[in-house]
Amino acid sequence: MKRLLVIGIGAGNPDYITMQAVKALNRVDVFFLMDKGRSKDKLLDLRRDICERYITNPAYRFVEAHSPERERGDVDYTRAVEDLNRARQETFVRLIDEQLSDGQCGGFLVWGDPALYDSTIRILQAILASGRCAFEYEVIPGITSVQALAAQHKVPLNTIGQPIEITTGRRLAAGQVSDTDSLVVMLDAEDAYRRVADEETEIYWGAYLGTPDEILIRGKLKDVAEQIERTRKAARAAHGWIMDTYLLRKP
Amino acid sequence: MKRLLVIGIGAGNPDYITMQAVKALNRVDVFFLMDKGRSKDKLLDLRRDICERYITNPAYRFVEAHSPERERGDVDYTRAVEDLNRARQETFVRLIDEQLSDGQCGGFLVWGDPALYDSTIRILQAILASGRCAFEYEVIPGITSVQALAAQHKVPLNTIGQPIEITTGRRLAAGQVSDTDSLVVMLDAEDAYRRVADEETEIYWGAYLGTPDEILIRGKLKDVAEQIERTRKAARAAHGWIMDTYLLRKP
Repeated sequence: MKRLLVIGIGAGNPDYITMQAVKALNRVDVFFLMDKGRSKDKLLDLRRDICERYITNPAYRFVEAHSPERERGDVDYTRAVEDLNRARQETFVRLIDEQLSDGQCGGFLVWGDPALYDSTIRILQAILASGRCAFEYEVIPGITSVQALAAQHKVPLNTIGQPIEITTGRRLAAGQVSDTDSLVVMLDAEDAYRRVADEETEIYWGAYLGTPDEILIRGKLKDVAEQIERTRKAARAAHGWIMDTYLLRKP
Repeated sequence: MKRLLVIGIGAGNPDYITMQAVKALNRVDVFFLMDKGRSKDKLLDLRRDICERYITNPAYRFVEAHSPERERGDVDYTRAVEDLNRARQETFVRLIDEQLSDGQCGGFLVWGDPALYDSTIRILQAILASGRCAFEYEVIPGITSVQALAAQHKVPLNTIGQPIEITTGRRLAAGQVSDTDSLVVMLDAEDAYRRVADEETEIYWGAYLGTPDEILIRGKLKDVAEQIERTRKAARAAHGWIMDTYLLRKP
Protein backbone atom coordinates (compact mmCIF):
# COMPACT_ATOMS: atom_id res chain seq x y z
CA MET A 1 0.00 0.00 0.00
CA LYS A 2 1.10 3.56 -0.69
CA ARG A 3 0.82 6.07 2.13
CA LEU A 4 0.33 9.81 2.02
CA LEU A 5 0.93 12.30 4.81
CA VAL A 6 -0.80 15.68 4.69
CA ILE A 7 1.43 17.67 6.97
CA GLY A 8 0.52 21.05 8.43
CA ILE A 9 3.80 22.93 8.70
CA GLY A 10 2.42 25.99 10.47
CA ALA A 11 2.20 29.57 9.26
CA GLY A 12 5.48 31.31 8.59
CA ASN A 13 7.73 30.65 11.56
CA PRO A 14 9.64 27.36 11.12
CA ASP A 15 9.42 26.99 14.92
CA TYR A 16 5.64 26.62 14.59
CA ILE A 17 6.20 23.06 13.42
CA THR A 18 5.03 20.34 15.82
CA MET A 19 6.92 17.27 16.99
CA GLN A 20 4.27 15.21 15.24
CA ALA A 21 5.01 17.00 11.97
CA VAL A 22 8.77 16.50 12.42
CA LYS A 23 8.21 12.77 12.89
CA ALA A 24 5.97 12.75 9.83
CA LEU A 25 8.55 14.62 7.71
CA ASN A 26 11.06 11.93 8.57
CA ARG A 27 8.78 9.17 7.24
CA VAL A 28 8.39 10.72 3.80
CA ASP A 29 10.20 9.36 0.74
CA VAL A 30 8.86 11.88 -1.76
CA PHE A 31 7.61 15.41 -1.09
CA PHE A 32 5.14 16.78 -3.60
CA LEU A 33 5.60 20.52 -3.90
CA MET A 34 2.72 22.21 -5.63
CA ASP A 35 3.68 25.42 -7.36
CA LYS A 36 0.99 28.01 -6.79
CA GLY A 37 2.15 30.80 -9.08
CA ARG A 38 2.87 34.26 -7.76
CA SER A 39 3.98 33.57 -4.21
CA LYS A 40 5.80 30.49 -5.48
CA ASP A 41 9.48 31.03 -4.86
CA LYS A 42 9.30 32.27 -1.31
CA LEU A 43 6.83 29.61 -0.22
CA LEU A 44 8.68 26.76 -1.94
CA ASP A 45 11.89 27.96 -0.33
CA LEU A 46 10.26 27.92 3.09
CA ARG A 47 9.10 24.34 2.53
CA ARG A 48 12.58 23.20 1.46
CA ASP A 49 13.99 25.07 4.41
CA ILE A 50 11.75 23.20 6.84
CA CYS A 51 12.76 19.86 5.34
CA GLU A 52 16.46 20.68 5.59
CA ARG A 53 16.09 21.86 9.12
CA TYR A 54 14.09 18.96 10.54
CA ILE A 55 14.76 15.84 8.46
CA THR A 56 17.55 13.64 9.75
CA ASN A 57 17.08 10.89 7.16
CA PRO A 58 18.54 12.35 3.93
CA ALA A 59 16.95 9.76 1.60
CA TYR A 60 14.06 11.91 0.49
CA ARG A 61 13.41 13.78 -2.71
CA PHE A 62 11.23 16.59 -3.98
CA VAL A 63 8.90 16.45 -6.94
CA GLU A 64 7.58 19.78 -8.11
CA ALA A 65 4.28 19.84 -9.93
CA HIS A 66 2.49 22.72 -11.48
CA SER A 67 -0.80 23.38 -9.76
CA PRO A 68 -3.42 24.72 -12.18
CA GLU A 69 -4.64 28.22 -11.35
CA ARG A 70 -8.19 28.97 -10.30
CA GLU A 71 -10.21 30.83 -12.89
CA ARG A 72 -10.52 34.42 -11.72
CA GLY A 73 -12.77 37.32 -12.57
CA ASP A 74 -16.51 37.17 -12.91
CA VAL A 75 -17.07 33.45 -12.24
CA ASP A 76 -18.83 31.52 -9.49
CA TYR A 77 -16.20 31.07 -6.77
CA THR A 78 -17.28 27.63 -5.53
CA ARG A 79 -17.51 26.27 -9.06
CA ALA A 80 -14.09 27.74 -9.93
CA VAL A 81 -12.56 26.00 -6.89
CA GLU A 82 -14.34 22.74 -7.74
CA ASP A 83 -13.02 22.91 -11.31
CA LEU A 84 -9.56 23.64 -9.97
CA ASN A 85 -9.76 20.72 -7.55
CA ARG A 86 -10.76 18.35 -10.37
CA ALA A 87 -7.71 19.47 -12.32
CA ARG A 88 -5.58 19.01 -9.21
CA GLN A 89 -6.98 15.47 -8.79
CA GLU A 90 -5.45 14.62 -12.18
CA THR A 91 -2.12 15.99 -11.04
CA PHE A 92 -2.25 14.14 -7.71
CA VAL A 93 -3.21 10.82 -9.37
CA ARG A 94 -0.31 11.16 -11.80
CA LEU A 95 2.13 11.95 -8.97
CA ILE A 96 0.96 9.02 -6.86
CA ASP A 97 1.06 6.62 -9.84
CA GLU A 98 4.39 7.70 -11.27
CA GLN A 99 6.43 8.86 -8.30
CA LEU A 100 5.52 6.47 -5.49
CA SER A 101 6.22 2.73 -5.36
CA ASP A 102 4.25 0.36 -3.23
CA GLY A 103 5.18 0.76 0.43
CA GLN A 104 6.53 4.26 -0.11
CA CYS A 105 5.33 7.38 1.62
CA GLY A 106 4.44 10.66 -0.11
CA GLY A 107 4.16 13.98 1.70
CA PHE A 108 2.19 17.13 1.06
CA LEU A 109 3.39 20.14 3.02
CA VAL A 110 0.48 22.41 3.80
CA TRP A 111 0.87 25.97 4.96
CA GLY A 112 -0.95 26.42 8.29
CA ASP A 113 -3.37 23.56 8.98
CA PRO A 114 -4.74 21.20 6.30
CA ALA A 115 -8.24 21.52 7.83
CA LEU A 116 -8.53 25.29 7.33
CA TYR A 117 -9.10 26.73 3.85
CA ASP A 118 -7.01 24.11 2.11
CA SER A 119 -8.22 21.56 -0.45
CA THR A 120 -5.68 18.77 -0.09
CA ILE A 121 -7.90 16.56 2.12
CA ARG A 122 -10.88 17.17 -0.16
CA ILE A 123 -8.88 16.20 -3.26
CA LEU A 124 -7.52 13.00 -1.69
CA GLN A 125 -11.01 11.99 -0.58
CA ALA A 126 -12.33 12.56 -4.10
CA ILE A 127 -9.55 10.40 -5.58
CA LEU A 128 -10.25 7.59 -3.11
CA ALA A 129 -13.98 7.82 -3.83
CA SER A 130 -13.30 7.60 -7.57
CA GLY A 131 -11.31 4.40 -7.07
CA ARG A 132 -8.61 5.68 -9.45
CA CYS A 133 -5.82 4.84 -7.07
CA ALA A 134 -5.51 3.33 -3.63
CA PHE A 135 -3.58 4.69 -0.66
CA GLU A 136 -3.81 5.27 3.04
CA TYR A 137 -3.40 8.77 4.37
CA GLU A 138 -2.99 10.71 7.59
CA VAL A 139 -3.52 14.36 8.48
CA ILE A 140 -1.17 16.25 10.79
CA PRO A 141 -2.48 19.56 12.16
CA GLY A 142 -0.41 22.75 12.12
CA ILE A 143 -0.46 26.23 13.64
CA THR A 144 -2.62 28.48 11.45
CA SER A 145 -2.10 32.15 10.62
CA VAL A 146 -5.16 32.82 12.79
CA GLN A 147 -3.32 31.45 15.82
CA ALA A 148 -0.12 33.27 14.87
CA LEU A 149 -2.13 36.48 14.63
CA ALA A 150 -3.67 36.05 18.07
CA ALA A 151 -0.35 35.08 19.68
CA GLN A 152 1.59 37.97 18.16
CA HIS A 153 -1.08 40.50 19.14
CA LYS A 154 -1.55 38.70 22.51
CA VAL A 155 -5.29 38.84 22.02
CA PRO A 156 -7.84 36.09 22.75
CA LEU A 157 -9.83 35.12 19.66
CA ASN A 158 -13.10 35.04 21.63
CA THR A 159 -14.64 37.17 24.31
CA ILE A 160 -15.93 35.33 27.38
CA GLY A 161 -18.37 32.58 26.39
CA GLN A 162 -18.95 34.14 22.96
CA PRO A 163 -18.46 32.53 19.54
CA ILE A 164 -15.90 33.18 16.82
CA GLU A 165 -16.63 33.28 13.12
CA ILE A 166 -13.83 32.53 10.68
CA THR A 167 -14.66 33.72 7.21
CA THR A 168 -13.25 35.06 3.93
CA GLY A 169 -12.68 38.60 2.70
CA ARG A 170 -15.05 37.75 -0.14
CA ARG A 171 -17.92 37.10 2.28
CA LEU A 172 -17.16 40.12 4.44
CA ALA A 173 -17.15 42.32 1.32
CA ALA A 174 -20.55 40.89 0.40
CA GLY A 175 -21.91 41.54 3.89
CA GLN A 176 -22.42 37.79 4.42
CA VAL A 177 -21.32 37.65 8.04
CA SER A 178 -23.15 36.91 11.27
CA ASP A 179 -23.33 39.40 14.13
CA THR A 180 -20.69 37.67 16.26
CA ASP A 181 -18.42 40.07 18.15
CA SER A 182 -15.27 38.22 17.03
CA LEU A 183 -14.80 37.84 13.29
CA VAL A 184 -11.61 36.41 11.81
CA VAL A 185 -11.06 37.20 8.14
CA MET A 186 -8.77 35.24 5.84
CA LEU A 187 -8.06 35.36 2.09
CA ASP A 188 -9.00 39.02 1.78
CA ALA A 189 -7.89 40.29 -1.63
CA GLU A 190 -9.92 43.47 -1.54
CA ASP A 191 -9.52 45.35 1.76
CA ALA A 192 -12.94 44.15 2.86
CA TYR A 193 -12.44 45.61 6.38
CA ARG A 194 -13.23 48.98 4.75
CA ARG A 195 -16.83 47.78 4.38
CA VAL A 196 -17.40 47.39 8.14
CA ALA A 197 -19.93 50.02 9.13
CA ASP A 198 -19.06 50.43 12.81
CA GLU A 199 -15.75 52.28 12.84
CA GLU A 200 -15.41 51.74 16.60
CA THR A 201 -14.70 48.08 15.75
CA GLU A 202 -11.16 47.10 16.66
CA ILE A 203 -8.99 45.40 14.08
CA TYR A 204 -5.98 43.20 14.84
CA TRP A 205 -4.20 42.87 11.53
CA GLY A 206 -1.09 40.89 10.60
CA ALA A 207 0.85 40.11 7.43
CA TYR A 208 3.67 37.60 6.78
CA LEU A 209 2.94 36.37 10.29
CA GLY A 210 5.73 34.53 12.03
CA THR A 211 8.31 35.51 9.40
CA PRO A 212 11.03 38.17 9.62
CA ASP A 213 8.80 40.35 7.39
CA GLU A 214 5.90 40.27 9.88
CA ILE A 215 3.81 43.45 10.13
CA LEU A 216 1.28 44.00 12.93
CA ILE A 217 -1.23 46.83 13.19
CA ARG A 218 -4.05 47.17 15.72
CA GLY A 219 -6.55 49.83 16.64
CA LYS A 220 -10.04 51.07 15.94
CA LEU A 221 -10.99 50.96 12.28
CA LYS A 222 -11.52 54.71 12.25
CA ASP A 223 -7.91 55.18 13.36
CA VAL A 224 -6.00 52.51 11.44
CA ALA A 225 -8.00 51.39 8.37
CA GLU A 226 -6.17 53.76 6.04
CA GLN A 227 -2.81 52.87 7.50
CA ILE A 228 -3.54 49.17 6.92
CA GLU A 229 -4.63 49.81 3.34
CA ARG A 230 -1.45 51.78 2.60
CA THR A 231 0.74 49.20 4.34
CA ARG A 232 -0.86 46.30 2.42
CA LYS A 233 -0.40 48.01 -0.90
CA ALA A 234 3.24 48.86 -0.22
CA ALA A 235 4.01 45.37 1.15
CA ARG A 236 2.39 43.64 -1.80
CA ALA A 237 4.40 45.82 -4.17
CA ALA A 238 7.63 45.13 -2.30
CA HIS A 239 7.20 41.34 -1.93
CA GLY A 240 5.17 40.55 -5.03
CA TRP A 241 2.55 38.84 -2.84
CA ILE A 242 0.93 39.20 0.53
CA MET A 243 -0.52 36.77 3.07
CA ASP A 244 -2.45 38.52 5.80
CA THR A 245 -5.32 37.90 8.15
CA TYR A 246 -7.20 39.88 10.78
CA LEU A 247 -9.54 39.77 13.72
CA LEU A 248 -12.43 42.24 13.93
CA ARG A 249 -13.72 42.79 17.47
CA LYS A 250 -16.95 44.69 17.96
CA PRO A 251 -16.99 47.29 20.72
CA MET B 1 11.96 42.80 34.71
CA LYS B 2 10.05 39.58 35.25
CA ARG B 3 8.93 37.66 32.20
CA LEU B 4 5.95 35.37 31.71
CA LEU B 5 5.41 32.85 28.93
CA VAL B 6 1.89 31.67 28.15
CA ILE B 7 2.63 28.43 26.37
CA GLY B 8 0.08 26.50 24.33
CA ILE B 9 1.02 22.86 24.77
CA GLY B 10 -1.51 21.42 22.34
CA ALA B 11 -4.48 19.20 22.99
CA GLY B 12 -3.72 15.77 24.36
CA ASN B 13 -0.93 14.31 22.25
CA PRO B 14 2.50 15.37 23.61
CA ASP B 15 3.68 15.35 19.96
CA TYR B 16 1.35 18.26 19.26
CA ILE B 17 3.86 20.53 20.94
CA THR B 18 5.65 22.98 18.65
CA MET B 19 9.37 23.71 18.43
CA GLN B 20 8.56 27.23 19.60
CA ALA B 21 6.88 25.83 22.71
CA VAL B 22 9.83 23.51 23.41
CA LYS B 23 12.20 26.49 23.24
CA ALA B 24 9.87 28.43 25.53
CA LEU B 25 9.67 25.56 28.04
CA ASN B 26 13.44 25.63 28.27
CA ARG B 27 13.47 29.32 29.20
CA VAL B 28 11.15 28.89 32.17
CA ASP B 29 12.44 28.97 35.77
CA VAL B 30 9.09 28.39 37.47
CA PHE B 31 6.00 26.70 36.07
CA PHE B 32 2.71 27.74 37.59
CA LEU B 33 0.33 24.79 37.57
CA MET B 34 -3.24 25.80 38.23
CA ASP B 35 -5.32 23.05 39.76
CA LYS B 36 -8.74 23.02 38.17
CA GLY B 37 -10.54 20.51 40.34
CA ARG B 38 -12.13 17.42 38.89
CA SER B 39 -9.90 16.69 35.92
CA LYS B 40 -6.91 17.77 37.97
CA ASP B 41 -4.68 14.77 38.36
CA LYS B 42 -4.67 13.58 34.78
CA LEU B 43 -4.13 17.05 33.34
CA LEU B 44 -1.40 17.99 35.84
CA ASP B 45 0.33 14.71 35.06
CA LEU B 46 0.22 15.47 31.35
CA ARG B 47 1.81 18.88 31.98
CA ARG B 48 4.59 17.41 34.11
CA ASP B 49 5.06 14.74 31.48
CA ILE B 50 5.56 17.35 28.77
CA CYS B 51 8.14 19.20 30.88
CA GLU B 52 10.06 15.99 31.58
CA ARG B 53 10.01 15.01 27.96
CA TYR B 54 11.11 18.29 26.41
CA ILE B 55 13.12 20.27 28.95
CA THR B 56 16.86 19.75 28.76
CA ASN B 57 17.71 22.32 31.44
CA PRO B 58 16.74 20.65 34.73
CA ALA B 59 16.86 23.87 36.81
CA TYR B 60 13.14 24.48 36.80
CA ARG B 61 10.51 23.99 39.45
CA PHE B 62 6.76 23.66 39.71
CA VAL B 63 4.48 25.75 41.87
CA GLU B 64 0.97 24.44 42.23
CA ALA B 65 -1.79 26.90 43.02
CA HIS B 66 -5.40 26.29 43.66
CA SER B 67 -7.56 27.92 41.02
CA PRO B 68 -10.89 29.07 42.43
CA GLU B 69 -13.91 27.36 40.88
CA ARG B 70 -16.47 29.15 38.77
CA GLU B 71 -19.84 29.54 40.46
CA ARG B 72 -22.22 27.08 38.84
CA GLY B 73 -25.94 26.69 38.68
CA ASP B 74 -28.42 29.45 37.95
CA VAL B 75 -26.01 32.40 37.60
CA ASP B 76 -25.04 34.66 34.71
CA TYR B 77 -22.24 32.83 32.91
CA THR B 78 -20.21 35.87 31.83
CA ARG B 79 -20.40 37.42 35.28
CA ALA B 80 -19.41 34.10 36.90
CA VAL B 81 -16.34 33.92 34.65
CA GLU B 82 -15.48 37.57 35.34
CA ASP B 83 -15.72 36.94 39.09
CA LEU B 84 -13.57 33.87 38.70
CA ASN B 85 -10.99 35.79 36.67
CA ARG B 86 -10.79 38.49 39.37
CA ALA B 87 -10.12 35.80 41.95
CA ARG B 88 -7.51 34.29 39.64
CA GLN B 89 -5.86 37.72 39.27
CA GLU B 90 -5.22 37.65 43.03
CA THR B 91 -3.63 34.22 42.72
CA PHE B 92 -1.50 35.26 39.74
CA VAL B 93 -0.29 38.46 41.45
CA ARG B 94 0.70 36.47 44.52
CA LEU B 95 2.55 33.89 42.43
CA ILE B 96 4.42 36.54 40.44
CA ASP B 97 5.30 38.52 43.58
CA GLU B 98 6.34 35.59 45.75
CA GLN B 99 7.73 33.01 43.37
CA LEU B 100 9.60 35.01 40.72
CA SER B 101 12.69 37.14 41.24
CA ASP B 102 13.61 39.95 38.93
CA GLY B 103 15.01 38.60 35.66
CA GLN B 104 13.31 35.24 36.14
CA CYS B 105 10.84 33.64 33.80
CA GLY B 106 7.48 32.14 34.80
CA GLY B 107 5.51 29.77 32.62
CA PHE B 108 1.82 29.00 32.28
CA LEU B 109 1.09 25.79 30.39
CA VAL B 110 -2.20 26.13 28.56
CA TRP B 111 -4.08 23.19 27.14
CA GLY B 112 -4.65 23.74 23.40
CA ASP B 113 -4.06 27.38 22.40
CA PRO B 114 -4.08 30.32 24.85
CA ALA B 115 -6.19 32.33 22.36
CA LEU B 116 -9.13 29.92 22.32
CA TYR B 117 -11.50 29.73 25.29
CA ASP B 118 -8.79 30.33 27.85
CA SER B 119 -8.55 33.28 30.24
CA THR B 120 -4.82 33.45 30.96
CA ILE B 121 -4.13 36.30 28.49
CA ARG B 122 -7.18 38.21 29.74
CA ILE B 123 -6.04 37.87 33.37
CA LEU B 124 -2.49 39.01 32.64
CA GLN B 125 -3.78 42.03 30.72
CA ALA B 126 -6.04 42.95 33.64
CA ILE B 127 -3.12 42.72 36.08
CA LEU B 128 -0.94 44.93 33.87
CA ALA B 129 -3.77 47.43 33.47
CA SER B 130 -4.22 47.56 37.26
CA GLY B 131 -0.53 48.36 37.72
CA ARG B 132 -0.32 45.88 40.60
CA CYS B 133 2.77 44.24 39.22
CA ALA B 134 4.99 44.70 36.20
CA PHE B 135 6.17 42.04 33.77
CA GLU B 136 6.66 41.35 30.10
CA TYR B 137 4.89 38.42 28.54
CA GLU B 138 4.72 36.38 25.36
CA VAL B 139 2.09 34.06 23.93
CA ILE B 140 2.99 30.80 22.17
CA PRO B 141 0.20 29.21 20.12
CA GLY B 142 -0.66 25.50 20.35
CA ILE B 143 -2.69 22.90 18.48
CA THR B 144 -6.29 23.06 19.68
CA SER B 145 -8.73 20.20 20.19
CA VAL B 146 -10.60 21.60 17.16
CA GLN B 147 -7.58 20.93 14.98
CA ALA B 148 -7.00 17.52 16.57
CA LEU B 149 -10.63 16.67 15.86
CA ALA B 150 -10.37 17.65 12.19
CA ALA B 151 -7.05 15.84 11.71
CA GLN B 152 -8.20 12.62 13.36
CA HIS B 153 -11.45 12.56 11.38
CA LYS B 154 -9.55 13.77 8.25
CA VAL B 155 -12.26 16.33 7.64
CA PRO B 156 -11.83 19.96 6.56
CA LEU B 157 -13.35 22.40 9.05
CA ASN B 158 -14.88 24.51 6.27
CA THR B 159 -16.65 23.74 3.02
CA ILE B 160 -15.35 25.58 -0.05
CA GLY B 161 -15.32 29.35 0.51
CA GLN B 162 -17.74 29.06 3.45
CA PRO B 163 -17.27 30.26 7.03
CA ILE B 164 -16.80 28.34 10.27
CA GLU B 165 -18.40 29.22 13.57
CA ILE B 166 -16.73 28.08 16.77
CA THR B 167 -19.09 28.24 19.70
CA THR B 168 -20.01 26.70 23.05
CA GLY B 169 -22.43 23.94 23.96
CA ARG B 170 -24.21 26.52 26.11
CA ARG B 171 -24.98 28.70 23.07
CA LEU B 172 -25.97 25.76 20.87
CA ALA B 173 -28.38 24.56 23.58
CA ALA B 174 -29.89 28.07 23.68
CA GLY B 175 -30.25 28.15 19.88
CA GLN B 176 -27.83 31.09 19.69
CA VAL B 177 -25.98 29.99 16.57
CA SER B 178 -25.78 31.40 13.07
CA ASP B 179 -26.82 29.40 10.00
CA THR B 180 -23.26 28.54 8.92
CA ASP B 181 -22.89 25.05 7.46
CA SER B 182 -19.84 24.30 9.65
CA LEU B 183 -20.32 24.68 13.38
CA VAL B 184 -17.64 23.65 15.86
CA VAL B 185 -18.86 23.15 19.42
CA MET B 186 -16.63 23.24 22.50
CA LEU B 187 -17.31 23.09 26.24
CA ASP B 188 -20.56 21.19 25.84
CA ALA B 189 -21.67 19.94 29.25
CA GLU B 190 -25.20 19.07 28.24
CA ASP B 191 -25.31 17.07 24.98
CA ALA B 192 -26.42 20.16 23.09
CA TYR B 193 -26.13 18.36 19.70
CA ARG B 194 -29.44 16.70 20.65
CA ARG B 195 -31.11 20.09 20.13
CA VAL B 196 -30.15 20.33 16.44
CA ALA B 197 -33.37 20.12 14.46
CA ASP B 198 -32.03 18.77 11.16
CA GLU B 199 -31.10 15.17 11.87
CA GLU B 200 -29.46 14.86 8.46
CA THR B 201 -26.70 17.05 9.89
CA GLU B 202 -23.40 15.18 10.13
CA ILE B 203 -21.52 15.18 13.39
CA TYR B 204 -17.78 14.55 13.78
CA TRP B 205 -17.31 13.94 17.47
CA GLY B 206 -14.15 13.30 19.45
CA ALA B 207 -13.22 12.89 23.12
CA TYR B 208 -9.79 12.78 24.82
CA LEU B 209 -8.43 13.74 21.42
CA GLY B 210 -4.82 12.89 20.77
CA THR B 211 -4.55 10.73 23.90
CA PRO B 212 -4.53 6.90 24.15
CA ASP B 213 -8.15 7.19 25.37
CA GLU B 214 -9.31 8.97 22.21
CA ILE B 215 -12.82 8.14 21.00
CA LEU B 216 -14.09 9.18 17.54
CA ILE B 217 -17.65 8.88 16.26
CA ARG B 218 -19.02 10.31 13.03
CA GLY B 219 -22.26 10.05 11.12
CA LYS B 220 -25.64 11.66 10.67
CA LEU B 221 -27.21 12.85 13.89
CA LYS B 222 -30.19 10.57 13.35
CA ASP B 223 -27.81 7.59 13.24
CA VAL B 224 -25.23 8.38 15.93
CA ALA B 225 -26.64 10.92 18.41
CA GLU B 226 -27.75 8.24 20.86
CA GLN B 227 -24.49 6.37 20.53
CA ILE B 228 -22.56 9.57 21.31
CA GLU B 229 -24.74 10.30 24.33
CA ARG B 230 -24.22 6.78 25.70
CA THR B 231 -20.49 6.89 24.96
CA ARG B 232 -20.07 10.28 26.67
CA LYS B 233 -21.91 9.14 29.77
CA ALA B 234 -19.89 5.93 30.04
CA ALA B 235 -16.57 7.70 29.38
CA ARG B 236 -17.27 10.39 31.94
CA ALA B 237 -18.13 7.73 34.52
CA ALA B 238 -14.98 5.75 33.72
CA HIS B 239 -12.52 8.69 33.69
CA GLY B 240 -14.22 11.02 36.16
CA TRP B 241 -14.12 13.82 33.53
CA ILE B 242 -14.47 14.29 29.81
CA MET B 243 -13.03 16.73 27.28
CA ASP B 244 -14.74 16.51 23.94
CA THR B 245 -15.55 18.65 20.95
CA TYR B 246 -17.42 18.23 17.69
CA LEU B 247 -18.08 19.61 14.24
CA LEU B 248 -21.64 19.83 12.93
CA ARG B 249 -21.87 19.93 9.13
CA LYS B 250 -25.18 20.77 7.53
CA PRO B 251 -26.26 18.63 4.60
